[in-house]
Amino acid sequence: MARMSVREKVAQLSGVWVGIDAAGDVAPHQHEQASAPDWDALVPFGVGQLTRPFGTAPVDPADGAAAVARSQQQIMAAGRFGIPAVVHEECLTGLAAWQATVYPSPLCWGATFDPDLVERMAASIGRTMRALGVHQGLAPVLDVARDLRWGRIEETIGEDPHLVGVIGSAYVRGLETAGVVATLKHFVGYSASRGGRNLAPVSIGPREIADVLLPPFEMALRAGARSVMNAYVDIDGVPVAADPQVLTEVLRNAYGFTGTVVADYFSVSFLSSLHGVAGSPADAAGLALAAGIDVELPTVDCYGPALAEAVERGDVDITLVDRALERVLRQKCELGLLDPGWSPEPPGVVDLDDRALAREVARESIVLLSNNGILPLRPGKRIALVGPRAAESSAMLGCYSFPMHVGVHHPDVPMGIDVPTVLDALRPDHDVTHAQGCPVVGGDDEGIAAAVDVARDADVCVAVLGDQAGLFGGGTSGEGCDATDLRLPGRQEELLEALLGTGTPVVLVLLTGRPYELSRQIDRLAAVVCGFFPGQEGGPALADVLSGRTNPTGRLPVSFPSAGANQPTTYLAAPLGQRGEVSTVDPTPLFPFGHGLSYAPATWLDVTADTEWPTDGTCRLVVTLTNPATISTAEVVQIYLHDPVAEVARPVRQLIGAVRVNLPAGSTRTVTADLHADLASYTGRAGGRQVDPGAVELHVGASSADIRAVLRVTMDGPVRAAGHDRVTRPVFSET
Amino acid sequence: MARMSVREKVAQLSGVWVGIDAAGDVAPHQHEQASAPDWDALVPFGVGQLTRPFGTAPVDPADGAAAVARSQQQIMAAGRFGIPAVVHEECLTGLAAWQATVYPSPLCWGATFDPDLVERMAASIGRTMRALGVHQGLAPVLDVARDLRWGRIEETIGEDPHLVGVIGSAYVRGLETAGVVATLKHFVGYSASRGGRNLAPVSIGPREIADVLLPPFEMALRAGARSVMNAYVDIDGVPVAADPQVLTEVLRNAYGFTGTVVADYFSVSFLSSLHGVAGSPADAAGLALAAGIDVELPTVDCYGPALAEAVERGDVDITLVDRALERVLRQKCELGLLDPGWSPEPPGVVDLDDRALAREVARESIVLLSNNGILPLRPGKRIALVGPRAAESSAMLGCYSFPMHVGVHHPDVPMGIDVPTVLDALRPDHDVTHAQGCPVVGGDDEGIAAAVDVARDADVCVAVLGDQAGLFGGGTSGEGCDATDLRLPGRQEELLEALLGTGTPVVLVLLTGRPYELSRQIDRLAAVVCGFFPGQEGGPALADVLSGRTNPTGRLPVSFPSAGANQPTTYLAAPLGQRGEVSTVDPTPLFPFGHGLSYAPATWLDVTADTEWPTDGTCRLVVTLTNPATISTAEVVQIYLHDPVAEVARPVRQLIGAVRVNLPAGSTRTVTADLHADLASYTGRAGGRQVDPGAVELHVGASSADIRAVLRVTMDGPVRAAGHDRVTRPVFSET
Repeated sequence: MARMSVREKVAQLSGVWVGIDAAGDVAPHQHEQASAPDWDALVPFGVGQLTRPFGTAPVDPADGAAAVARSQQQIMAAGRFGIPAVVHEECLTGLAAWQATVYPSPLCWGATFDPDLVERMAASIGRTMRALGVHQGLAPVLDVARDLRWGRIEETIGEDPHLVGVIGSAYVRGLETAGVVATLKHFVGYSASRGGRNLAPVSIGPREIADVLLPPFEMALRAGARSVMNAYVDIDGVPVAADPQVLTEVLRNAYGFTGTVVADYFSVSFLSSLHGVAGSPADAAGLALAAGIDVELPTVDCYGPALAEAVERGDVDITLVDRALERVLRQKCELGLLDPGWSPEPPGVVDLDDRALAREVARESIVLLSNNGILPLRPGKRIALVGPRAAESSAMLGCYSFPMHVGVHHPDVPMGIDVPTVLDALRPDHDVTHAQGCPVVGGDDEGIAAAVDVARDADVCVAVLGDQAGLFGGGTSGEGCDATDLRLPGRQEELLEALLGTGTPVVLVLLTGRPYELSRQIDRLAAVVCGFFPGQEGGPALADVLSGRTNPTGRLPVSFPSAGANQPTTYLAAPLGQRGEVSTVDPTPLFPFGHGLSYAPATWLDVTADTEWPTDGTCRLVVTLTNPATISTAEVVQIYLHDPVAEVARPVRQLIGAVRVNLPAGSTRTVTADLHADLASYTGRAGGRQVDPGAVELHVGASSADIRAVLRVTMDGPVRAAGHDRVTRPVFSET
Repeated sequence: MARMSVREKVAQLSGVWVGIDAAGDVAPHQHEQASAPDWDALVPFGVGQLTRPFGTAPVDPADGAAAVARSQQQIMAAGRFGIPAVVHEECLTGLAAWQATVYPSPLCWGATFDPDLVERMAASIGRTMRALGVHQGLAPVLDVARDLRWGRIEETIGEDPHLVGVIGSAYVRGLETAGVVATLKHFVGYSASRGGRNLAPVSIGPREIADVLLPPFEMALRAGARSVMNAYVDIDGVPVAADPQVLTEVLRNAYGFTGTVVADYFSVSFLSSLHGVAGSPADAAGLALAAGIDVELPTVDCYGPALAEAVERGDVDITLVDRALERVLRQKCELGLLDPGWSPEPPGVVDLDDRALAREVARESIVLLSNNGILPLRPGKRIALVGPRAAESSAMLGCYSFPMHVGVHHPDVPMGIDVPTVLDALRPDHDVTHAQGCPVVGGDDEGIAAAVDVARDADVCVAVLGDQAGLFGGGTSGEGCDATDLRLPGRQEELLEALLGTGTPVVLVLLTGRPYELSRQIDRLAAVVCGFFPGQEGGPALADVLSGRTNPTGRLPVSFPSAGANQPTTYLAAPLGQRGEVSTVDPTPLFPFGHGLSYAPATWLDVTADTEWPTDGTCRLVVTLTNPATISTAEVVQIYLHDPVAEVARPVRQLIGAVRVNLPAGSTRTVTADLHADLASYTGRAGGRQVDPGAVELHVGASSADIRAVLRVTMDGPVRAAGHDRVTRPVFSET
């Protein structure tokens, strides 16, 4: 570091957005929001990061990896120190590269309630990335869903911080054990933007941040995540990208984080162009650096010559540059990039295909919301398969995937992967007639009439409705695709009403990025199956469930609202956030958090718990379940805390532990949960975590509204002074 | 105080809800949420407050006053110290007593932008109250509108803290100069409840509280308000009724308030029954008393025997009781109630009628939102007067008025006042045919068809649509009557579409408690007139405007949303809270804050300002207007601040001054505004108020989106250390 010039130091702190061009070479990418920098002028000073080489064009991954390796050679040769770049890519639902497997989206991960499975998925993603020379993945998203109108709900793991933390940590472990840097985003507050509008200001207080938004990050940092990305938003007026309280006090000093903080794309520039807290790019760089952003992404708008000049003028302290530089270089060391003799090895043939795992995740994630017995579909029935999402591969994929990211701008680009639709998957085994009815948005009366004709002639109608994922207006869900209400997009509700009018039983299959209102139709629907965006193998997985080859066991990670429930709302509400006499508006959801049916539900035999909870120890809860059926099933045992009296208004129920229990046909299982007292902690009046003496209740059940046992546990003694671990998790064992 | 027993002390700290019964006597009132206490058992210990003697039954006010006087005698005779009760009543839109004039609701006050007129109105209300033996009025509401779905939007003065503060202070001066204690409510945060749902938890940070919600209260306290009522809500988990930070640190220590804090009805009980922060009524009393609530209203659930026992057990410190008691007794002293020889004098005949003033306020408050030239109505035209609000007296009145408060439970109770409808007021001068079309909620096809027939046969259709004010489900606007979206209630939008389909020009008149979406119809409407709830004389005032006898000069105190703008939103938004490329949702309102047309608009001749703003002095702004027309008009000169770079994200525009300039036909007026530098202050990173050096812009115009001049003003020197007055107001003069 001592030998580096200011310009060379600063060069390590930013990225260059590159793309692999037609000739198979890496070249600076011309992004709509940024001019392409001059590559040849940059490389002599070094390059901190290569931004998204695979994500912007359909290039054979092995060719792309070879191009990246050549670029690394070029960077190492041009600079005085031969420091290679960190290569990063998006990887939320799989590496965002052409031909790479696209897994289910995060709402699906939440629905599995299965951290081990999610860890295996992330490990597979990580292995692919390492093989291609990618060091850092911009995932997982740990934002806790707060307003269902927000377009990025599909990228969240749900509305509960414990679930988001447990599943998000599993993803981190998977990626990191494969040697890839996991990047936790968006730290913090993004999901609470006003009105669910992307990037809108956030009104929130410190307790809600501490008790709802932060715990998943703290959990995932302990799971080994080595990078964090800031949130775009300003919270109570302060842009996170310029907030040392969030990025340094909380993240570094309280959590002990030693990795890198990378900027969400353009968020350093936004400090001057959108937030109005900096008068120039150099000022923006100074603010962001002081707050704790180590690396500007995607490109060099602020952490470039402007910052170097500001340092030389004395406007920005060189120690701030050195602080970030040390973190960046240490991470490059850890990644082996600074090892003597390190050289980027272009891979040979890369196998990007892990469809079997994608299908396993999809199968576990599908949620059966309601069923009058029509499901599973009986053999020999004539099926009318209707709806805009029945025969579209894009229906399966979330916004953060190569096909959806690139396809929105280049519809002529082939997906690069085979994505069977519900029609593809049902047709081999069933007598299926198909009609679209209407597109996701728009449509006409004739299309609906044609679908009605098809439905009328069938024994059962399967209506596949939902969203088109996209970016900034290219879809009905996804980044920048926010909703003004929670009715199904376009004319789909009208189509559904028309189908219900035929008298043919209607099974609704939802392929959506968010929950929608179903209360006007629910009483007339024969069954509802929710797939969210189930990924590349979602079609076959849905066919497995519809046909009964798979017994559905997914549980909702987000509540489905009733038509009269305004946004924002959440199950995590204090008494006055629940139904009451004081308002005409009833926020009670149609389907609550944690809800999910099965063709063969488990029977709950017994729930017991210790009646005293040692203030520094564990309370043991024991649940015994049996499966009397002849097919296997699973139950998600959900443990909620209810604290009748506390210093502050607390959620009526808050998840403190959940475990998926697989139950083969005829089996009985006993699950033991050891619950540490810290699970009862919350942020008290004084601002720190505390556990109060007195009685609490454990509400144990199959959903947040389906409580099978209420167990009162008392806690005595002076517990307020203890250092309470906000991200403690129960220890489960099974016999 | 030293001679009083604990029980006697506590008795001064609570109210007894009384009503005047059929025999004309005051008796404990049986409220649905509280059992009636035993009057005879209570009075020997004293009674702090008599709650709402006039508000619950139709009793001749003079008889009621006589009954109150008898009760006072009884209280004085029964207790050891002969301390009379403070008598309080609701008085928001006039004293909530039978036969008393009902003035326009607070949105109308805001629309006048005329503090002098509002002060005269409040003085008239105050004189009536004093004459009847009422000492304290539970008004004004100073909540800043934050979410238009909230049922109590009608009770707010609008969405801008400066306007709410200026108009609210005028109301306070009026009431207080009449000798009545004004009660500022609801301190603080009530309007920001989640999803606009009444009493729902509030997510907000300290800066937004300081810069948006608190300033109106601080202004109104300086205007002389002697009482404050807490907000029901919990903010970031802490119920305001149990928050010493809000009720003592801010209110007492920072603002220097020495009056009384009274509890919003049942809010002390709610600490145990709804917020879950107290285990019993006695605990709730202890928390509320410690936080700074001096008087429990409406009745003695917690500040009664339970509190006295808690004090005697040592659970609650007697000094807390004494602190509240001293404030209560000091206020009784100030009111003269403890003067030797004070005796409640029953009044003779009381004149409750000030209809001329009610009409003046209504006339100034009516906002002409759009007009293609059809208004004013030409003589001789055949008018189809249509809609559920055209011929209903209740259409004129807000929720907080005797007829609406009582009528919702007792529809058979006569209003006690004459409230002419739009039909009543238009018929004498016009050829009017009437059809209802549909009720406010519900209705059938035949009703709409009949209205269409009437409209088709007319030269112009005047559609009077809107809300029914009510309480807790008894209406579409008002306390507890929250909305799930901002479409006109019931089938009214459908009726409007049907009327537009006739081809007859349609003038829409809105009588509503909140803005509604009009974007789907606005291009086809000939004109739109907004009256909000214009009070008892609203019908004649609307007829004055429609017929051209009054030139409309009201300006919107709240934005009218476009159909694609999610709630919550506000004009007071930082750049990312405004329209942007980053979301499909565009929050731009259809009609912005401050908007209002006139039949003869003023012409802006010149706007100039000093180019330097002394850091401890005033910047002079001069605006010259002329009225070239042959009728008088008025302009509301609106001065907005734009701060391009600050420590935090600031509103793109924020009102710092506004003045209504009356312009007789042919006149020219020059308005001078002396703007103190403190008007540029905001809550900085460190948490205190500050003014930054550098350039700001004054955006001067006729609405928040109709800016006629942008003036750059620079400020130099060290201004951060100064003590900035957050509630400073510009000084206006006119020549």
